[in-house]
Amino acid sequence: MKIITVSREFGSGGREIGKRLADELGFDYYDREIIEAVAKNKGVDADYAEKALENHLWKTYSVSFGRSFATLSVNAASLLAEEKKVIEKIAGLGKDFVIVGRNADVILKDCEPFNIFVCADMQSKIRRCKERAAEDEKLSEKEIEQKIRRIDKARRESRQLISGTKWGDKSYYHLVVNTTQWNIKELTPAVADFANKFFGRTK
Amino acid sequence: MKIITVSREFGSGGREIGKRLADELGFDYYDREIIEAVAKNKGVDADYAEKALENHLWKTYSVSFGRSFATLSVNAASLLAEEKKVIEKIAGLGKDFVIVGRNADVILKDCEPFNIFVCADMQSKIRRCKERAAEDEKLSEKEIEQKIRRIDKARRESRQLISGTKWGDKSYYHLVVNTTQWNIKELTPAVADFANKFFGRTK
Repeated sequence: MKIITVSREFGSGGREIGKRLADELGFDYYDREIIEAVAKNKGVDADYAEKALENHLWKTYSVSFGRSFATLSVNAASLLAEEKKVIEKIAGLGKDFVIVGRNADVILKDCEPFNIFVCADMQSKIRRCKERAAEDEKLSEKEIEQKIRRIDKARRESRQLISGTKWGDKSYYHLVVNTTQWNIKELTPAVADFANKFFGRTK
Repeated sequence: MKIITVSREFGSGGREIGKRLADELGFDYYDREIIEAVAKNKGVDADYAEKALENHLWKTYSVSFGRSFATLSVNAASLLAEEKKVIEKIAGLGKDFVIVGRNADVILKDCEPFNIFVCADMQSKIRRCKERAAEDEKLSEKEIEQKIRRIDKARRESRQLISGTKWGDKSYYHLVVNTTQWNIKELTPAVADFANKFFGRTK
């Protein structure tokens, strides 16, 4: 079984690389599906589950709402635990797949996945966010930057929580791709080439 | 003119990737030649020049030798300045080339080089150092690790000195390759593929 995990800074185009890699290599692709499965299993709304994990509600609310902390804390932490189960179940299917985010590189470590991290400079991430924004989402550049920093902070924290390791630290990935000034579509075959080299490598 | 710069942790195999990339792409290759030119231009021995730059003599000796500091400081700093001149002269030739180390990604920024950083985990770097060690160099694993840390510290410092930027920070490179568990020879064509994509990219 061949697994590719894609970790990424928000707005760097990591999701697009993941999707294109899956298409190019004929692998299954998992991203939003995981949140949907988690939400279903825990009987909550998928948007709520996503937001809870993105924003680390137990952190925010532990400050703001005093006694609500315990409930919310269990809630978000149990979503994280459920997410782990869902990901392990996917790996249990034995099919090749690409998975975006969700600390999958840590969770699936024993399966020896090919781990990619995708980053870009802030200007390039803001531009990408603007291009793909929904019609009704009119954020200023400053607001987009705040959103990027907030989401990446939560990603950093959840990785720290799960594995005690540093999110985005190059030593944890086989390849770090900086998409600044790149066209993702053009870039993907080169990443696929790397992945193929990885799976066919002699150690 | 196409330029590839290879920055690397000591022992990660970055030099080998650089050399193989140059062979594969038919580019000129610069590494030790630069130190030799610097040494010749400054009228010092090449081994001395290399050691002075590697160990940042002005730092070490400023502590140990008191008044010798001024002389040695000028000396090492002037080697760094001469190195910059030599690198700019190479770029002035207008031919495609690969250059390993020497903060070339910073010095040649305006030429828009493709910048790679090569890293690996400590065990893998120690193993590589042992494999390629000269017959008469019998260092223990602990000594090799100390050497790796010392040289990388100097690289970090000289980059900081030259550009005020952080050596090895993924945001400064187009691609970060982690060679742990990889065979460099197998890996190189995938890196070359990336470089070709970069030079042919639509921005």
